[in-house]
Amino acid sequence: MRRQFQKESLPVERVRRYLEPGPVVLLSSTWNGRHNIMTMGWHTVMEFSPSLVGCLISAGNHSFEMVRRSRECVINVPTTALTDELVGIGNTTGAEIDKFDHFELTAEKGQKVKAPLIRECCANFECRLADDSLVGRYNFFIWEVVSAQAALSPKYPQTLHYTGDGVFMVSGKIISRRRRFLPGML
Amino acid sequence: MRRQFQKESLPVERVRRYLEPGPVVLLSSTWNGRHNIMTMGWHTVMEFSPSLVGCLISAGNHSFEMVRRSRECVINVPTTALTDELVGIGNTTGAEIDKFDHFELTAEKGQKVKAPLIRECCANFECRLADDSLVGRYNFFIWEVVSAQAALSPKYPQTLHYTGDGVFMVSGKIISRRRRFLPGML
Repeated sequence: MRRQFQKESLPVERVRRYLEPGPVVLLSSTWNGRHNIMTMGWHTVMEFSPSLVGCLISAGNHSFEMVRRSRECVINVPTTALTDELVGIGNTTGAEIDKFDHFELTAEKGQKVKAPLIRECCANFECRLADDSLVGRYNFFIWEVVSAQAALSPKYPQTLHYTGDGVFMVSGKIISRRRRFLPGML
Repeated sequence: MRRQFQKESLPVERVRRYLEPGPVVLLSSTWNGRHNIMTMGWHTVMEFSPSLVGCLISAGNHSFEMVRRSRECVINVPTTALTDELVGIGNTTGAEIDKFDHFELTAEKGQKVKAPLIRECCANFECRLADDSLVGRYNFFIWEVVSAQAALSPKYPQTLHYTGDGVFMVSGKIISRRRRFLPGML
């Protein structure tokens, strides 16, 4: 079931909370008056402050030139409520369809970038391109998250984690080992 | 409960199966006759063939100079059977203790690199440094997996996914959407 999330702004250094567990994300962009969305699983947090995220966008994706030229994107975190949309978005191309229209997703205006946020996702991270030095060789983009918002609840959203072959792992139970951490390691 | 896994060699282009869902991993290395292990959560698959994995190793880690100089490592995937070891390894330093001894882990000889595999992990990926051009600026290492092995069962091991603040998500149920994928996207 789809739902509207009530969100609050999040300090950008806290995006690791959502991205480090490895969810499949939806990357939205805009260029020349057209929006697009792609499904992405190859990404990693790289730094807290500035808040850096590195990701792989294959040159064959319609989004590749859009983000390379606009130097902006939004990383949106979907929950299992969007499983079929996420698979559909990954198996179609923005060269042929408008993905917001086709998948009935809502484009929202961002705070800092022109790329649209996806309202139906539980977290939205607005990004500016920080370093394109590995784009030519590896299609690897390093983004700075410049504005972030995330749902107030659930505290740990049910996310999808891809394992290849059309199979996903759904995020499971939450366990704390906080007492075993040194204060400086938290 | 700890267990010994029966493993088989894995084609290196299939490491995405284990790494893309975002598990915390244990990175093992050797330099100057000494082994070490670190806990790592910031990594991403970057290419199938050659099999590339990018990861962040902070310069403050004892492992940083070891892997920078030896230009080798092993990425080991632990299951929840090693939760306390994983937390312990992340909260101690190889400058003070021998982590294999202290955490009673078994160093195994690799096929292609001198860095030791951790026998108690369900998958072991031997890596050679493929690109260090972002090490100086971001502590970002790009590895080529040159040999891989993984447990025959369970098919989907129970892995740990870090969310910060001493809290982990444990991998949950497996769902397939294979029928909704285009053949070329699998």
